[in-house]
Amino acid sequence: MPGKKVSEKTIRRLSHYARCLRIARADGIPIVTSKHLSERCGISSAAVRKDLAVFGEFGKQGSGYGVSDLLENIEGILGTCKPPPVIVIGAGNIGSALLESGLDGTGGYSYSAIFDSDPKIIGKTIAGVTVQPIAELREVIGAYGDVIAILAVSPGSGQNAVDNLVNMGCISILSFTLEPLNVPEGVVLRYIEVSTELDILTHSMKCRE
Amino acid sequence: MPGKKVSEKTIRRLSHYARCLRIARADGIPIVTSKHLSERCGISSAAVRKDLAVFGEFGKQGSGYGVSDLLENIEGILGTCKPPPVIVIGAGNIGSALLESGLDGTGGYSYSAIFDSDPKIIGKTIAGVTVQPIAELREVIGAYGDVIAILAVSPGSGQNAVDNLVNMGCISILSFTLEPLNVPEGVVLRYIEVSTELDILTHSMKCRE
Repeated sequence: MPGKKVSEKTIRRLSHYARCLRIARADGIPIVTSKHLSERCGISSAAVRKDLAVFGEFGKQGSGYGVSDLLENIEGILGTCKPPPVIVIGAGNIGSALLESGLDGTGGYSYSAIFDSDPKIIGKTIAGVTVQPIAELREVIGAYGDVIAILAVSPGSGQNAVDNLVNMGCISILSFTLEPLNVPEGVVLRYIEVSTELDILTHSMKCRE
Repeated sequence: MPGKKVSEKTIRRLSHYARCLRIARADGIPIVTSKHLSERCGISSAAVRKDLAVFGEFGKQGSGYGVSDLLENIEGILGTCKPPPVIVIGAGNIGSALLESGLDGTGGYSYSAIFDSDPKIIGKTIAGVTVQPIAELREVIGAYGDVIAILAVSPGSGQNAVDNLVNMGCISILSFTLEPLNVPEGVVLRYIEVSTELDILTHSMKCRE
């Protein structure tokens, strides 16, 4: 069932609530208050109550919210009840590092496959996942259906890798590659930019001196 | 010299220009046009020209911009002519992965030290950097002066690690830890949230189905 599109800021908050609720559930806590979520998510109590009021009948103010029900509802909105498989393109330093770090605590995401074009790397096993040749990408995407592809290729190879993914029907890409990439309408491409974050921090530091 | 505070969005664009200019310089290109920067940074030509007009006399429209001069000016605004050392707290999967990935291509940032509290990890070498005990943090920050600290500790240890850093005078922190952390005024704390990005992509995917 297609869901209602919610703003990115709201999705961010819901993602944080879901994370806190999973921790509460793992700790055996049956009921949480908006204050609990507020403190653990770093989001104001008022904003938490407003979100939970907007997104349905999650509980009664004052008596708290049932952890399992609330988590189920939020995961329903996010669409993360059954998270899509995550595949990684590029088994160099970043790709390997991602697999070794894992996705524990993210609510069910996991790395299902990793690809590289280098014959020296293909066949290696990283954190239990065997590096496959790019030629097998189509088959893997065909088998999994919707996937999120993480791009961890070397600079200069990003556009080629993205074009390849898009041709095979991938519509969700997260790039660790430091170059702007073009995708057709309907494909969502997001970036993780550690070096831009470092520049932002350096600039703030300079401004405080 | 303290700089003028520039908006985060602008800093992001300048950071991208600097990255493109470094590549041009490495390729031996002496002059670039706003069109060159626009295409390679994924930013409109008009926005590039506006930025370069606002931030000084960087060149004449039509005749292009000298790569070295423009880069020097932008790095002057960003404060990244001499990037601060980057230290990593936590030598688990994420911390190790960061060091192994390196910071090549970021314009001079490098990992100067990594710390952990686990005696089994202390003394190990990761990508040429030896893991030091947390007890040596004060000495290292004292020796380097301003540093950027990347937080890569396990969930639940973040606030303790941040408090420790702040007590030792660190004012710039980038957290890979998935928990909200409190810092006093004057300390800038930013987050890299891979799992939130995955949730945003999953939600968009669901909305397109």
